[in-house]
Amino acid sequence: MISVILWKWRCHSYPDNPELICPKQIRIMKALVYHGPGKKSWEEKEKPVIQKATDAIVRITKTTICGTDLHILKGDVPEVTDGRTLGHEGVGIIEEAGEFVTKFKKGDHVLISCITSCAVCDYCRKGMYSHCENGGWILGHLIDGTQAEYVRIPYADTSMYKIPENSDEEALVMLSDILPTGYECGVLNSQISPGDTVAIVGAGPVGLAALLTAQFYSPSLVIMIDPDDNRLAVARKMGATHTINNRNEMAVEKVFKLTDNKGVDAVIEAVGIPATFELCQSLVAPGGRIANVGVHGKSVELHLETLWAKNIAITTRLVDTISTSMLMKTVQSGKLNSKQLITHRFKLSEIIRAYDCFEQAAKEKTLKVILSND
Amino acid sequence: MISVILWKWRCHSYPDNPELICPKQIRIMKALVYHGPGKKSWEEKEKPVIQKATDAIVRITKTTICGTDLHILKGDVPEVTDGRTLGHEGVGIIEEAGEFVTKFKKGDHVLISCITSCAVCDYCRKGMYSHCENGGWILGHLIDGTQAEYVRIPYADTSMYKIPENSDEEALVMLSDILPTGYECGVLNSQISPGDTVAIVGAGPVGLAALLTAQFYSPSLVIMIDPDDNRLAVARKMGATHTINNRNEMAVEKVFKLTDNKGVDAVIEAVGIPATFELCQSLVAPGGRIANVGVHGKSVELHLETLWAKNIAITTRLVDTISTSMLMKTVQSGKLNSKQLITHRFKLSEIIRAYDCFEQAAKEKTLKVILSND
Amino acid sequence: MISVILWKWRCHSYPDNPELICPKQIRIMKALVYHGPGKKSWEEKEKPVIQKATDAIVRITKTTICGTDLHILKGDVPEVTDGRTLGHEGVGIIEEAGEFVTKFKKGDHVLISCITSCAVCDYCRKGMYSHCENGGWILGHLIDGTQAEYVRIPYADTSMYKIPENSDEEALVMLSDILPTGYECGVLNSQISPGDTVAIVGAGPVGLAALLTAQFYSPSLVIMIDPDDNRLAVARKMGATHTINNRNEMAVEKVFKLTDNKGVDAVIEAVGIPATFELCQSLVAPGGRIANVGVHGKSVELHLETLWAKNIAITTRLVDTISTSMLMKTVQSGKLNSKQLITHRFKLSEIIRAYDCFEQAAKEKTLKVILSND
Amino acid sequence: MISVILWKWRCHSYPDNPELICPKQIRIMKALVYHGPGKKSWEEKEKPVIQKATDAIVRITKTTICGTDLHILKGDVPEVTDGRTLGHEGVGIIEEAGEFVTKFKKGDHVLISCITSCAVCDYCRKGMYSHCENGGWILGHLIDGTQAEYVRIPYADTSMYKIPENSDEEALVMLSDILPTGYECGVLNSQISPGDTVAIVGAGPVGLAALLTAQFYSPSLVIMIDPDDNRLAVARKMGATHTINNRNEMAVEKVFKLTDNKGVDAVIEAVGIPATFELCQSLVAPGGRIANVGVHGKSVELHLETLWAKNIAITTRLVDTISTSMLMKTVQSGKLNSKQLITHRFKLSEIIRAYDCFEQAAKEKTLKVILSND
Repeated sequence: MISVILWKWRCHSYPDNPELICPKQIRIMKALVYHGPGKKSWEEKEKPVIQKATDAIVRITKTTICGTDLHILKGDVPEVTDGRTLGHEGVGIIEEAGEFVTKFKKGDHVLISCITSCAVCDYCRKGMYSHCENGGWILGHLIDGTQAEYVRIPYADTSMYKIPENSDEEALVMLSDILPTGYECGVLNSQISPGDTVAIVGAGPVGLAALLTAQFYSPSLVIMIDPDDNRLAVARKMGATHTINNRNEMAVEKVFKLTDNKGVDAVIEAVGIPATFELCQSLVAPGGRIANVGVHGKSVELHLETLWAKNIAITTRLVDTISTSMLMKTVQSGKLNSKQLITHRFKLSEIIRAYDCFEQAAKEKTLKVILSND
Repeated sequence: MISVILWKWRCHSYPDNPELICPKQIRIMKALVYHGPGKKSWEEKEKPVIQKATDAIVRITKTTICGTDLHILKGDVPEVTDGRTLGHEGVGIIEEAGEFVTKFKKGDHVLISCITSCAVCDYCRKGMYSHCENGGWILGHLIDGTQAEYVRIPYADTSMYKIPENSDEEALVMLSDILPTGYECGVLNSQISPGDTVAIVGAGPVGLAALLTAQFYSPSLVIMIDPDDNRLAVARKMGATHTINNRNEMAVEKVFKLTDNKGVDAVIEAVGIPATFELCQSLVAPGGRIANVGVHGKSVELHLETLWAKNIAITTRLVDTISTSMLMKTVQSGKLNSKQLITHRFKLSEIIRAYDCFEQAAKEKTLKVILSND
Repeated sequence: MISVILWKWRCHSYPDNPELICPKQIRIMKALVYHGPGKKSWEEKEKPVIQKATDAIVRITKTTICGTDLHILKGDVPEVTDGRTLGHEGVGIIEEAGEFVTKFKKGDHVLISCITSCAVCDYCRKGMYSHCENGGWILGHLIDGTQAEYVRIPYADTSMYKIPENSDEEALVMLSDILPTGYECGVLNSQISPGDTVAIVGAGPVGLAALLTAQFYSPSLVIMIDPDDNRLAVARKMGATHTINNRNEMAVEKVFKLTDNKGVDAVIEAVGIPATFELCQSLVAPGGRIANVGVHGKSVELHLETLWAKNIAITTRLVDTISTSMLMKTVQSGKLNSKQLITHRFKLSEIIRAYDCFEQAAKEKTLKVILSND
Repeated sequence: MISVILWKWRCHSYPDNPELICPKQIRIMKALVYHGPGKKSWEEKEKPVIQKATDAIVRITKTTICGTDLHILKGDVPEVTDGRTLGHEGVGIIEEAGEFVTKFKKGDHVLISCITSCAVCDYCRKGMYSHCENGGWILGHLIDGTQAEYVRIPYADTSMYKIPENSDEEALVMLSDILPTGYECGVLNSQISPGDTVAIVGAGPVGLAALLTAQFYSPSLVIMIDPDDNRLAVARKMGATHTINNRNEMAVEKVFKLTDNKGVDAVIEAVGIPATFELCQSLVAPGGRIANVGVHGKSVELHLETLWAKNIAITTRLVDTISTSMLMKTVQSGKLNSKQLITHRFKLSEIIRAYDCFEQAAKEKTLKVILSND
C-alpha cells in the first residue's frame, strides 16, 4: 500500500517519463518472504516485471495459505531457498501482459493455477501439466509466489483462467489448488461412480475438497474419517453420509458394518502418513481403488501378501489442474459451493496473523483463510 | 489305465447291468493327490460324479502344472487339505453333463478355466469372476482338480469353453490360466497402448505370457528382466526388444538409457517378491502403471515419499479369465502362438516325473509341461 | 380376486390333496390380454406355472404401463400375438421358485427387470443383456407379462432384484424399465460428466428419467425441449436448468445462445421421430455425443456432409438393465427420487381405465401410472 | 531451383547487404498454385517469411498429394481461393524459426502435421486440435501449403515434430495426414481390440492406412471391401485377412458368413458416399461401432428403425493428429511400415505429372506419390 502511494506521489510530478524518475528502489511491493526454516516476514520487495513475452504480471486481490506452505516453513522442501516469496494460490487483476499473451490483457480478472503449464512440452500435450518440463509447481517454490501484492505468472495463457463477471472471488481462490487437488487426485483417480461407497481418510481442507467433489458423481455413501470432531461436523454439513472419529472408534469395523462387510469401492487418502495409508488398505473392497492425495515424507508398507489377489488399484498424483475450467462452471452453476471451506478472513497485510491462525487449525477451527488485498 | 482295464474286464461279463456288477470301488481313476506339505502321489481315487445339475464331468485329455501347484506342495496354501487332487488347467471331453448344463453335451471338446464362475453372483455380473461367491479359484484348491483322469467342473456353462474343430489342444491348455493371467493381470491392467515402452520383471511362464500378449498392442519397446540367461533368450525369440540380466547388469540404469531417461510407461511384476516389486517402482515413468501379477507372501515397501507426485497407478488382480474367448480367437487366427511356452511333454501317468522336471526349471530349461492322457 | 376366493373356498374342504380337488380351471387369475390391434381385455387366464427349474412365479403387487404397450396395442409390434398378457414392469412377491433359483425363495419381495437375462450366453457375459440369446425383452412381448395377478419370470436369479426392507414399492416400479432406459441409453451413452451442457429432446417419462439421472453427474446446464408446457414445468421441478417449448420457440437459436454459440456436449433423443433426431444433430457441439433413446419407426436423415468433421458420436441402445442395482442404491440413499414420475394411481383391476388415462397423457397430465394389486 | 541459383549468383557479389541487393522479386520459389476450379500451375511465387514469432519457415524436402487436393481442384472446397499454394503434408528442414519457437532451430529436420495447433485454445487443451480456434486444417486451405519449395508453419512448436536421425523421410511423409487419419478417425474411434472382427469399406490410401494401424490391436479378422481388385491385392499384402470385391460379390452375405452370422465388431467407412455408409450399417454387429473416415458431400440415410435397438455407436472425426508422436515411434520400432503406401516417386518440379498419376489412380495403380525437392 505504502509503496503504491509513494509511487503515485513521486511520479505525479513527472508523468512523462516515469522510468527516469521512478527508479528501481521505489517500484516495490510487500510480500511474504521465506528466510530459511521457521523464518518468514512480510516485507518490501521489488515488484516483479515481465521476463518473457509469455509472462503476465498480476496484482493479487485475494490469496490463501496452503498446508504445503507450512511444510516449506518447516524446511521440508529444500528447493525453496532464502528470499523466496511463498504462495501458489490466488485471484487478481492483470497489471501487464507480455507481448505473446493472447488470452489476457491489462485489467482482466483472473484465477491463477497452482500449476504452471507451458502447453507445448510432451507432458502438457498429454494433459499432465503437473510434470510440465518448463513449469509444473513452481509458484512459491522455484519462483516467487502469490502471497504478495504482485506476482509474475509465466505461460500466462495456459496457467490462468479468465473470471466471468459477477463471480465470487473467494469461491474461486479455492480453485487455484485445493479443489482440483481433491477432485483430480482423489475423486477422478478413485473413479467414483453413482451408487458407489466412498471413504475419505482425513477431513482437512483437501479431504473436504474431495468430499465436495465426490458428490459430483452421486455416491450412495461417503464416510469421512478423522480424529477431529469439529472437522467431522463440518464434513457432515458438507454432505458426508457418515463420519468416524478414528481416535475413539474402530474405523475398519464401522466401515465394514456400513458396507455389508465388503469394504468401500473408493478410498481417498488425504493425510500423508503411514498410519492413514495403512488404514486405507484395510478399507478397500475387492475391485476397489485407493487414491492417494496426501504428501508423504516416508515410505509405507504395502500389503501385497493380501492385496495381490484383491483386484485393486492404487494411484498417486500431483494435481494437473486440468479440471479448473470445469470446476469454475460448477461454481457458476451452483453445483459446487467451494466457499464453505473458508473459515477466516484477513487483510493481506495481516498475513503473519493468518499463518498463526492456519497453524493453530485445531484450536482455531481453521480450514482455509482468505487474504484480501483491497 | 489299470483301473480302466480292470473295469473293462470286470464289466465285460455283465454288460447289461453295470451298476450292479461294477460297484463303486471299481469306478475309480488315477489322480495326483496332495497329502500334506511335500507329499503327493499318483494314485487311485473314485471317479467324480455329478453333484448339482449345473456340473459336468470331464475326461481330461491334456493338463499341465502351475507354479501355484508347487506353492501348494510347499504347504504355502493352507486351505488345500490332505486328499485333494491338484491342478486347475486342462482340456478334455465332456463325459457327462448335468441336467442344467445348456452349452455342452457328452462328447464335446472343452477348455477348462482355472476360475469357476457361477454367473449369477454380484461379482460375476460385474465380470469379476475371480471373486465369484460360489466359485473363483476352487479347482485343485477347495475341490478336486484337473491332474487326474476325470474332473468335476461346477457351473460348467460358464467355467468352460467349447473347443472349435481342428484346434491344437496343447496351445489351448496354455489358456486355462497362464495366458489370461499374463494378459489380464499384466497387460490389461498396465494399459499398454501402441508405441508404449514396457518392462516385464520376471521371465517365467507368466512373465512370458505377458510378453506374448503385450504385443497385441504394438508397444515400441518391451524389455524383459530376469536373472536366467536361458529365459532371456526365450524372451528375445518371443518378441522382447531388449533383455536385461539383473544378476549382472544394472537394470535401472539400462532401462533409463533405453527410454530417454524417463522410465517405462508400463511395468509388469511377474515374480512376487519384495526385491522385484522394489525394482518396478524404480522403472516406472511419470504417468506410468505398475501391474502386479506375482503372488506375494510378504508385504513390500511402497515409496510414496517419491511416488506421491509421480501420477502412477499400481494394480493387483487375481485373474478373472474374462479374456479366454478372445484369447482362443487370437490363437485360431494365428495372432498368438501360445504353444511356444511348452518345453516338455509327458504322459499323464508320468506326472511325478513331470513335477520333477518343472521343479528343476532352471536346470531343465522348463517353462510349461504338457501331460497327455491318451 | 374372485378366483382366489373361489380357490380358497373350494380347497378348504380338501386340504390334503389340492391337486385333485382344485382342478386346472380354477387355478386362474386376471390379466390384461392383447387380442390384436386395438383390442385388449382384463380377463381370466390360467395362472402361470414353473416351466424350467430356473423360473419363478411372482405375485404382482404393483405394475405400470409403458409407451411400448401402446405401440403394441396399435399393432406396431407384430411379434406380439393374440392372447398375450402385456406388461414388462413391476414388483411383487415370490410365489414359487424353481429348484435352480438360488437367490430367491417363496415370500421374497422382488423387483422385476424388463429385460430377462440368462447370464450364460455371450451377450450376457459381456453385460449386453438386451441381446441375451435366451431372454432380452420377452415379457409382455414373446411370453406373458406383468399386467396380471401373477407372472412367470424365466432366469429368475438374473432377471429380478431383491427389494430391501422398508423400501417404497412405487419408487421401485420405476426401476423396471424407465429409469435404466433413461440412464443407460441416454445418460451413460452420452457420457455426461461434471460441468457438461446437456439437451434432452422429449419430456415424456423416459426423457424425464434421463433428466433425473443426468444429474448424477452434475452437468452445469440441462435444457429440456418439448412442445408440452406442463411437461416442461415438471422438468423444471425435476432439475432442468432451462426449458424450451419447441412449438413456440426457436430451439437451436436458444440452445446456442445458452452455450456461447457452441452447442451442447450431450444431446439425448427421447422421442423417436425424424424431426427430433434432426433437431439433435443441430444442437450438438464439436466433440459432443447424441444418445438416441427413442424407438424409431422410420429411417432418418444423417447430415454427414457437415457432421463428418465435427468429431461427434451417435449411439443407440436397447436398455440392458445393467444399472438396476446401482439405481436401487441411489433410491435407497435418497439421491434419486424416481417416485416423482408417478402422476396417477389405480387398482390393478382398473387397468382399462389406467390405459385410458395413460393414452390421454397430454389432457390428463399423465406421466407414469401405478397399478396396485393389494 | 533456378530461383535459388539466381539468388546465389546475384547475392554472391554483395554478401554484406543481401537486403539491399536481393530485392523482393528474387526471393522467390516455385509452388503449386490453385487458380480456381480445374486450374493449377507450378509457378514462381514469393518465398514465405516469418509473420509471427511462433512461425517457422521450412524448406520442403519431400511432400505428397492428398485426395483432398483433388477435391479442392474440383472446386468442392470454396474456402480455397485463387492463388493458394496447395498441400498439407511433408517433411523438410527448418530454414528459419521465429523468436518464440522453442523446440526447433535452423537446420532441424521436421515432419509437418496437416493440422496446425495453437496449443492454448480450449479445443487444443482438450486434445481436439482439429478444431483449434487459431489453426486446425489451414495449410493448403486457408494459408499457403506444402507443395512448394518453402512453407510457413504457424505455431511451429505444436504443429511439427522433430525427425530422429537416420529416419526414412518417405515413411514419415505418410504421417503428416494419412496415417493419423486412418488411425484416429478409423481405428481409435472404432475401438478395435484384440480378437475383434473388422471391416474396412474402401481400400484407397486412407482405408489402407486404417488397415495398417488396425493391426496395432491384433483383430482376429480384417475384411477389406472395395471394387478395385488391384487395391484388394495390396490390402491382402498389407494384412487384410479377407477381401471382398463389392462390384462382383455380395458383401453383406460374405461378411455374415465370415462372422458366424453376427456382423463385425468394427466397421470403418473410408469412402464418403451414401452407398458405402449404407453398406456399413448392414455390416455392424450388435454392440459394434461404425467409424466414419470418409469426407461426405451429401447427407445419408440412417436406419434408426432397425439400429435403435442394436446398441451401436457411429463416430465422425476430422483428424486431430494427436497420435503423430506415437506413430513415429511405431515406424522407428518397425511396427508400422507406412512406406508400403508409396507407389510412385517424382521430383517436386514434376508435380503436374504427379497429379496426373494420382488422378488416374485406378489405371496407374497409384496409392501415394512422393515428391522430392533435392
